[in-house]
Amino acid sequence: MATFTRLIRFLAKDGQVYYGDALLPSGVSDIAKTTKAKIIQGDIFGQHRVTDKVADVRMLLSPLARKDIGTVRCLGLNYEQHAKESNMPIPKYPILFYKPITSIAGPTDDIPVPKIAQEFEGLDYECELVAIIGKEASNVPESKALDYVLGYAVGNDVSHRDWQIKLGGGQWSLGKGFDGWAPFGPGIVSPKVIADPNALNISTKLNGKTVQASSTKDMIFGVAKTIAFLSQGTTLLPGDMIFTGTPQGVGMGRKPALWLKDGDEVEVALEGVGSCVNRVVFEKPASKL
Amino acid sequence: MATFTRLIRFLAKDGQVYYGDALLPSGVSDIAKTTKAKIIQGDIFGQHRVTDKVADVRMLLSPLARKDIGTVRCLGLNYEQHAKESNMPIPKYPILFYKPITSIAGPTDDIPVPKIAQEFEGLDYECELVAIIGKEASNVPESKALDYVLGYAVGNDVSHRDWQIKLGGGQWSLGKGFDGWAPFGPGIVSPKVIADPNALNISTKLNGKTVQASSTKDMIFGVAKTIAFLSQGTTLLPGDMIFTGTPQGVGMGRKPALWLKDGDEVEVALEGVGSCVNRVVFEKPASKL
Repeated sequence: MATFTRLIRFLAKDGQVYYGDALLPSGVSDIAKTTKAKIIQGDIFGQHRVTDKVADVRMLLSPLARKDIGTVRCLGLNYEQHAKESNMPIPKYPILFYKPITSIAGPTDDIPVPKIAQEFEGLDYECELVAIIGKEASNVPESKALDYVLGYAVGNDVSHRDWQIKLGGGQWSLGKGFDGWAPFGPGIVSPKVIADPNALNISTKLNGKTVQASSTKDMIFGVAKTIAFLSQGTTLLPGDMIFTGTPQGVGMGRKPALWLKDGDEVEVALEGVGSCVNRVVFEKPASKL
Repeated sequence: MATFTRLIRFLAKDGQVYYGDALLPSGVSDIAKTTKAKIIQGDIFGQHRVTDKVADVRMLLSPLARKDIGTVRCLGLNYEQHAKESNMPIPKYPILFYKPITSIAGPTDDIPVPKIAQEFEGLDYECELVAIIGKEASNVPESKALDYVLGYAVGNDVSHRDWQIKLGGGQWSLGKGFDGWAPFGPGIVSPKVIADPNALNISTKLNGKTVQASSTKDMIFGVAKTIAFLSQGTTLLPGDMIFTGTPQGVGMGRKPALWLKDGDEVEVALEGVGSCVNRVVFEKPASKL
């Protein structure tokens, strides 16, 4: 569908923001290391073309502009070992929740922690494969589901366990939906490059130390099955994102629990895509309140 | 903020779709009865004006075009009597979940029931006051929260109880998110007209018989408190919608349970706003599968 190979959105050295097709140095697969890109013109979900004009990348931004993001769906407990560490049964059907558009951020953005999330315990990381829908999908069979994917990225489903589990009446949304709590990127890799999204190493480093290391082959519901399931009676639109769940190793599953602190650096990485590195920043109380 | 009094979106007799300011006949308050409207030009969340050009209304549409809808937030168990009939404790904080943009529909649209929701039991209605955010809101105090409201409408948070509660791993989203499962309207009434959103009668009729009848004054978390709470660390954007929960009388709370059937007509109504009348239509199996 798409003409690009590795879609990025970036601030260029000329001061403009562009969509581009990343030009990776030979032997490099982490899009975060992109220094040059071919500028893309047009609608990335419709008519567009990769031009021959090359721009210098100053900073990678969220691979999708806010106006291009649709509904952000997420799966819970979609890796068997993570379901076990959470003391939850293996789900029979995909467990769906949402994050708001305002939670989406870029691959190097800070993760702001508002006061409401500082008052209670449990700030946690979750590395996830993110599938971005490229064209309208309704009641698609599993065998054709990957045809509807624009590409794949890695994301961090930042979660506050007390608000998610104890204080939100059992609904996970509030504790996962704060501004900037879904950084993703560093770019979106076309299915031309990633034919099988369920054969990729995925990991998290906290302050340089590996805390999650797994493979997307351990998903309970693979990407194709997930898209087919979610499209039943629900039209998935171009720009919709699916965070497909996290493997074992989250802070909540450890003894003692390992919670993110102010200043921590969290890196999530996906094979063939690259890494996002985001710093946890506790917000000071707003003076206007 | 807004220049309109009762915002509608409609198919006119001239075959065009417009935003308009409803011109109600004297003594009529139900926007569903609108036959004429002044055409609105511009961005309803920004620069716009109510023109003097009057159009004839052929059919009311979803009061917001899809491109103008942001994140759709919903509260659960926000009326005390409904929490009791659901055998759930009174929540200490608002219980948040989401519906996708594709669930939004107009005041006379059919409610399509896909196959996945026909296989299990429990199709239910929920009349709700819907608040539409008019300008960006972040960490707003309760005393100023209503200043961020574009207006109020009535909506039906159509819910499939088995998918919502039993089959969705405890997360409510899947069983409430199918295409067209959030009809709302018939228009959006400005806070100029509704100064206090928590003093309105709200009700549901099923095939002409009243099944829910309450007042928004029975909300546990009123509209202002809800907006203030949800805006903590989360930026609410123009076009975001908040379904504020339903009162007692849902089908699930009855003995025996009262489930919606193919062909049923459901009317939700809110004082000072009007009513939405939607027919339940069970979808035939798609031939393409």
